[in-house]
Amino acid sequence: MGIDAYRWLMTAPKAPLERAGFVAEPAAGEVTVAVAGCGVCHTDLGYYYDGVRTNHPLPLALGHEISGRVVAAGPGAEAWLGRAVIVPAVLPCGECDLCRRGLGPICRGQKMPGNDIHGGFASHIVVPGRGLCGVDEARLARAGLALADVSIVADALTTPYQAVRRAGVAPGSLAVVVGAGGVGGYCVQVANAFGAKVVAIDVDDAKLAAIAAHGAALTIDARVHDAKAIKAAVAAFAKREGLRPTEWFVFECSGTAAGQQTAWSLLVHGATLSVVGFTMDKVEVRLSNLMAFDARAIGNWGCPPEHYPAALDLVIDGRVALAPFVETHPLDDINRVFADVHHKAIKRRAILVP
Amino acid sequence: MGIDAYRWLMTAPKAPLERAGFVAEPAAGEVTVAVAGCGVCHTDLGYYYDGVRTNHPLPLALGHEISGRVVAAGPGAEAWLGRAVIVPAVLPCGECDLCRRGLGPICRGQKMPGNDIHGGFASHIVVPGRGLCGVDEARLARAGLALADVSIVADALTTPYQAVRRAGVAPGSLAVVVGAGGVGGYCVQVANAFGAKVVAIDVDDAKLAAIAAHGAALTIDARVHDAKAIKAAVAAFAKREGLRPTEWFVFECSGTAAGQQTAWSLLVHGATLSVVGFTMDKVEVRLSNLMAFDARAIGNWGCPPEHYPAALDLVIDGRVALAPFVETHPLDDINRVFADVHHKAIKRRAILVP
Repeated sequence: MGIDAYRWLMTAPKAPLERAGFVAEPAAGEVTVAVAGCGVCHTDLGYYYDGVRTNHPLPLALGHEISGRVVAAGPGAEAWLGRAVIVPAVLPCGECDLCRRGLGPICRGQKMPGNDIHGGFASHIVVPGRGLCGVDEARLARAGLALADVSIVADALTTPYQAVRRAGVAPGSLAVVVGAGGVGGYCVQVANAFGAKVVAIDVDDAKLAAIAAHGAALTIDARVHDAKAIKAAVAAFAKREGLRPTEWFVFECSGTAAGQQTAWSLLVHGATLSVVGFTMDKVEVRLSNLMAFDARAIGNWGCPPEHYPAALDLVIDGRVALAPFVETHPLDDINRVFADVHHKAIKRRAILVP
Repeated sequence: MGIDAYRWLMTAPKAPLERAGFVAEPAAGEVTVAVAGCGVCHTDLGYYYDGVRTNHPLPLALGHEISGRVVAAGPGAEAWLGRAVIVPAVLPCGECDLCRRGLGPICRGQKMPGNDIHGGFASHIVVPGRGLCGVDEARLARAGLALADVSIVADALTTPYQAVRRAGVAPGSLAVVVGAGGVGGYCVQVANAFGAKVVAIDVDDAKLAAIAAHGAALTIDARVHDAKAIKAAVAAFAKREGLRPTEWFVFECSGTAAGQQTAWSLLVHGATLSVVGFTMDKVEVRLSNLMAFDARAIGNWGCPPEHYPAALDLVIDGRVALAPFVETHPLDDINRVFADVHHKAIKRRAILVP
């Protein structure tokens, strides 16, 4: 009953990814998803170029931003058969003590495609038939989107969605997003959708220009302003807009040490700094500023599956623009696409389509 | 109607403190407190020895851990007259937008004695007649405590109380307190009173021995164990005691860069790191660990006055031992006492009594 499938395997850091056949067959409680698209994330490049270790030993198919259609289901998961779905980037087990206490993001039995299990740079993927996010294809079509497009709802959209939600952004908030790229761009849009006035900071003119048209009320080029000037610019913006000088929401989405330094320097009284991006690099910070400002720093690992539908609705309802920030490429061009994303020759979020 | 009073003024960092007379007279809404005792805090030493700037220009009387009796009251504050009180270390204005929204710790009109206004190293202090914590002297006497003793409830007890409360420590929690000194020792006791099993880490045998008898289930000497060994010891303790390997509550109370490094290294999945101590020093940390562990770091600036009565009750009800950790000295010995605390010749919390 298996399906002849293939996936692109990472065998070692920087070694060319290799196409390999396999038979996709779901066990009890699992489903096979025919991949519609899988987004290429900074995290994939971290594994591939920077030596960040995957939990599953190599060889492993990377890719955790996956949409597709359920084409086979094991016992107990039949209800998903035929449905269009987004596969959450982090799938908690749903049954352990942590999950029962609502702490899915730290579930120790969680499965992250492309890290704990084979990922979505593949024709098919076998995943637990639990926590998947159903996609209403009629609404999707009316919104002018293809199923492949919404692959990046997993992670690129939902991770900042969870960060914005958890931080408590509300109408009248001032949000500052450091790094307006593949994740940060959506963070700008989501914070804006939650009612915040949003400042976007980046080192790339094109990204700043793009996000200025989609939710950023102010953009700041971090190449020409130091930390002090950036903070002064945000403070002046707050004053001009009648926003508070306290309780800023800062979202570090660049996943770089420089971005983290900038984000840390934006702490004000009662601030919330959300650490959304990842880097292995350390940064030198005055940790006591959290104390002096009665502020907090919150890490965000993925997004609980129960919040995916609301995040997807932002896209389908047109409150978050997705199409201008993605581009699709054939999956079999994966080695070229990885290199192009790594060298910034591709500016939008690349989605690989089998 | 003023009272002839005196206070010890800091005129410049490291310059001998100078005794100066003044007339204590409360304005409308203010009270004059005859000081019973004022604790000597790491923060005072930071102003005096390390060049940390006070908000009020020098000369200024330091001291923010104050108990005493209200001996005069301005119009509108008469209800306090004659009462024994603890003066909160941070007095929010109570009227601004931040205060109305429950954000007293970041009130921009807040008054901290010994920082924003003249402090408690004095015979008398004039403070707002709002947010004071009344002390039931009959209960205090039954508990074998003098009014001067409970001066250190302001800050030394209430700041970790607020940190423990805000972090969400509950029965069955694992708490780790880094720095078991004047503040950290109470943090151990408060976390224990909230139902946590507590690990205390310090570099001072005497402090570890003292706290082992008052709420620390395990003590670790950070001079002989590196960060990795400390984390392994805490993990082994958790396993032995049937506590969780996740969601540790770490309280950094040492106010040192080394302590902050240790605290950061204790992050586990779902951890909460409370930054209670202060240092101007920066530390090099992998900020992204917050993201990878879905963890958070919370700064704590003082404690809202409304939580003082519950914190004081812990002492009066005998759930937090205060007497073994304090010693009183004459206020007029302040220069000697500052030096002795600075050089660690005084191990307990020093309380200066006019």
